[in-house]
Amino acid sequence: MSITSLRDLFPFFSSEQNQSLIYFDSAATSLKLDSVIQAQNQYYQFNTANVHRSSYKAATQVTAQFEQTRCDVQTFIKANSPAEIIWTKGATDSLNLIANCLTRSDLLDNKGSEILIAASEHHSNIVPWQALCNTLGFQIKVMPVDKNGVLKLEESLQLISENTAVICIAQVSNALGNINPIKPLIERAKANKALTVIDGTQAVAHMPINVAELDCDFYVFSGHKMYGPTGIGVLYAKLGILEQLPPYQLGGEMVKTVSFSQGTSFQPSPLKFEAGTPNIGGVLGLAEAVKFIQNDINQIETVEEQLYKRLIQILTGIPQVKLWGDTDNTICLQSFTLEGVNVYDLAVMLDEHNIAVRVGHHCAMPLINALGIEGVLRVSLSCYNTVQELDFFEKALKQSISILLDPGLDSDSSPTPEVLIESEQTTSVNNNLTLGLIAKSLKAAKGWDNTYRQLMLAGKGLQRLADLDKTPDTEVFGCESQVWVKCELSDNKVLLVGDSPSKIVRGLLAVIFEVLNHQQSCVILSFDLTEYLASLGLSRHLSESRGNGLAAVFDKIRKFCLVNGS
Amino acid sequence: MSITSLRDLFPFFSSEQNQSLIYFDSAATSLKLDSVIQAQNQYYQFNTANVHRSSYKAATQVTAQFEQTRCDVQTFIKANSPAEIIWTKGATDSLNLIANCLTRSDLLDNKGSEILIAASEHHSNIVPWQALCNTLGFQIKVMPVDKNGVLKLEESLQLISENTAVICIAQVSNALGNINPIKPLIERAKANKALTVIDGTQAVAHMPINVAELDCDFYVFSGHKMYGPTGIGVLYAKLGILEQLPPYQLGGEMVKTVSFSQGTSFQPSPLKFEAGTPNIGGVLGLAEAVKFIQNDINQIETVEEQLYKRLIQILTGIPQVKLWGDTDNTICLQSFTLEGVNVYDLAVMLDEHNIAVRVGHHCAMPLINALGIEGVLRVSLSCYNTVQELDFFEKALKQSISILLDPGLDSDSSPTPEVLIESEQTTSVNNNLTLGLIAKSLKAAKGWDNTYRQLMLAGKGLQRLADLDKTPDTEVFGCESQVWVKCELSDNKVLLVGDSPSKIVRGLLAVIFEVLNHQQSCVILSFDLTEYLASLGLSRHLSESRGNGLAAVFDKIRKFCLVNGS
Repeated sequence: MSITSLRDLFPFFSSEQNQSLIYFDSAATSLKLDSVIQAQNQYYQFNTANVHRSSYKAATQVTAQFEQTRCDVQTFIKANSPAEIIWTKGATDSLNLIANCLTRSDLLDNKGSEILIAASEHHSNIVPWQALCNTLGFQIKVMPVDKNGVLKLEESLQLISENTAVICIAQVSNALGNINPIKPLIERAKANKALTVIDGTQAVAHMPINVAELDCDFYVFSGHKMYGPTGIGVLYAKLGILEQLPPYQLGGEMVKTVSFSQGTSFQPSPLKFEAGTPNIGGVLGLAEAVKFIQNDINQIETVEEQLYKRLIQILTGIPQVKLWGDTDNTICLQSFTLEGVNVYDLAVMLDEHNIAVRVGHHCAMPLINALGIEGVLRVSLSCYNTVQELDFFEKALKQSISILLDPGLDSDSSPTPEVLIESEQTTSVNNNLTLGLIAKSLKAAKGWDNTYRQLMLAGKGLQRLADLDKTPDTEVFGCESQVWVKCELSDNKVLLVGDSPSKIVRGLLAVIFEVLNHQQSCVILSFDLTEYLASLGLSRHLSESRGNGLAAVFDKIRKFCLVNGS
Repeated sequence: MSITSLRDLFPFFSSEQNQSLIYFDSAATSLKLDSVIQAQNQYYQFNTANVHRSSYKAATQVTAQFEQTRCDVQTFIKANSPAEIIWTKGATDSLNLIANCLTRSDLLDNKGSEILIAASEHHSNIVPWQALCNTLGFQIKVMPVDKNGVLKLEESLQLISENTAVICIAQVSNALGNINPIKPLIERAKANKALTVIDGTQAVAHMPINVAELDCDFYVFSGHKMYGPTGIGVLYAKLGILEQLPPYQLGGEMVKTVSFSQGTSFQPSPLKFEAGTPNIGGVLGLAEAVKFIQNDINQIETVEEQLYKRLIQILTGIPQVKLWGDTDNTICLQSFTLEGVNVYDLAVMLDEHNIAVRVGHHCAMPLINALGIEGVLRVSLSCYNTVQELDFFEKALKQSISILLDPGLDSDSSPTPEVLIESEQTTSVNNNLTLGLIAKSLKAAKGWDNTYRQLMLAGKGLQRLADLDKTPDTEVFGCESQVWVKCELSDNKVLLVGDSPSKIVRGLLAVIFEVLNHQQSCVILSFDLTEYLASLGLSRHLSESRGNGLAAVFDKIRKFCLVNGS
């Protein structure tokens, strides 16, 4: 199967609207196989029936297909029995099930009281264990990462002892793409009778999985990150363990008998863990995703290796780029930061080039905090991406970085930021407030790149907030990047100072402050921000999160006005 | 919109394979709207992106659409705020969330310790409360039903007191279709400061819902029973209550901050209750189902009323039929039993007519036990059914009942059962066992109706098991209807006696016993049941559940042989 033909299996690219879109966010959710969509459609259109409940032919056929998929997944991850495959709504559901059921089982009775978690874990493999620790009085110990975010194997191994109850680690880090050395960790864990929980969410689409060989106790993953539907996931656990776990959710089809007077008895696994009508459409769609990966894994690996090489070539060719994670043991995902460039700003620029990447903490705040950074920009590729897309990405990346490093204007005739900020207001808008020079320059800017240049120049002229003033009190919650706004009242006027590591956000603050700084509370309270931004042509450049961030800033200022109104 | 055009919205009927299928099992899962399927496809094919995580345009568009659906559902059930709408994987998930979070909240602190549950509830609105009672030391009190399965309102109201903590009841009973008088119950509950949990799963597709008017605290339902996708459901709760509940599942996007050292802080509702990537495809599909019901509810109600009238006309015209539930306050669903006819046998016959109905306890065992029956046959209709389908159903029903009441053979030349059973074996099959007369008559039977006639005649000749021998020891678990098998060893041979209220199952027992009774253990242990049934042409008449039931019978006999082997 050629590279082109793998891509051809995904209808996403056949749409005209997506011709100019480059999807580099597959670690958030993958695109979907046509076969997955068709299998779901077949069920929803023509083969609709519930499973396990009714005994007419249509229902028994769907039930057989549903249970066959359980066997397909068993084969896919090399489990010993279909009874070891539990349908969940996703990896998060699976991990909650494990932590919750372990809390109420006696499986942890004769073990230590330490839960070992990798510093790089996704929140979903941390927070359920914090809850278990709260209930049982256990403690979390963190398996450390080095300064690049790579697990320190030796130190981690040494943390494993007879005090260890459970070890929780992803096979592949979602934030950095590292393939973690889970095999030696599992071996050491078993020698110490600790349970092992492997989050395979970022692994299953990219490499063959063999739970029998790994010998882990639990393995979880989501359908939607492996070309499958949303709302369906898998929990694998050894049958002997499942038999010792109490049920998780309670309801129909997981019970043998229900009585008000004599209580309730439960089915054996897997039904014991599957209360209520399952996501039948999701299961039948997942079957096709599993078949695809199983049959084409060699081709997938070849394509993805080639893409990753090219990605690294591009990124290492840019002097400001700092790569995070382990570029040797990795899936085709790379996170990076840039010296002098805010990654949130870069993501906004790439979005203007129609390149979809994710930026931030990637639901792994402890990792990002440990690395001492605000967030990373993550490029996550998949078998349907192409080298041509990466070539385009390279150009867009370089252009965006150059604008962000030096937002000098294209045209000589544009006013300088200093002039912009000092100049008087003229045009009448929004409650008789007048347009300042920043506003006018934005209205006049041609093309999105010049709009951003103007914004960043305006931000450059914004008064800095002293570090001492960057407190929880001045921090604005709800913005993608950090923002602080300090409000003071002087002579019945509101004085505004604000800051952000993002040049674009600083620019947006400058836009707001130009029109609201030194105004009376009543003027600010009757100001319509949405209308104002629209009048400047800024609305379409504000993503939901930027927009929400700006709304949160304005909200903070309004609240100050309400309390300190003149 | 005419009746035909409502039906035209469902692609199910456009398939050739379904031309002869009559789907009367909509209470198990409804057929799906084309608009639902198309909305899912649009997302899976062309608009794929995760929600709430990324800030590029494609992701913010999907997020906006996803959140718009929350507002659509808010409008649909008349909630006060979109923050009161939580996405779950279905009603069972919703009910588990409520019971689990209430257990860990202080909302029950100053209330009584009684949980009131209607006797007619679905297991999913019983078992989670049993768990809450186990943890908190609370007690379940049962709101009683009369001999027809209809809630006794006055007695139920009198159970509500200041000792009541929570009242749990379905708006519509899934087993009987009764519309419960929830309004006075909620009023009395509020007067006693009890919380109210309404299971709306069987209501939402059939009547307008108004949670503001009901003034209930919780309301839950599933997408797949209202023309929508599987794997998506809704939990409504009053915002003030949601704010006081701890989170349920833990993971990505429901947290504000995560830290190993400083713990974790959570988002406000609804995100607080939505850990992990949600069922995005399911939500976008559900949006279309909600729009359809909202816009066409009058037409739906008119069609369904007409269908229900005709159904009742048919059923009351059959003297053996006993109707259950309240035929005045009901959705278009009717459960019934028949004097002298086993409902499991009737469902098998209707299946041969390609009519899909559900038979059994309908995940409401306490109700079925309270009514003193083994199960009911449930016909559940929906707006896409037709009077023509009901006309066909009437004929099939009458024919099936007549065969079940008197399985006399069509052809005079067929051997009588007495002859069949006494006769000697001749043909060599399966480990040199020979075909008996029952086997031969089944092989010779023309058409499915004569196959069943032969089976029932054979069952008629089967030796009855004494009631004293119908013990937990002889009962076989895993069969749809009750079955008992008693094994004894005599003179190194295995003696088999068995029984069942189902004539068809008795027939199947006769088939097995003919070939295995009085055999040595070693012969039985090397017997291939599947091959044998196939050789008689029985395989295609055995639904999964009948097949499993038979396998369970055979398994019991084999186990006996293993322990008492000669």
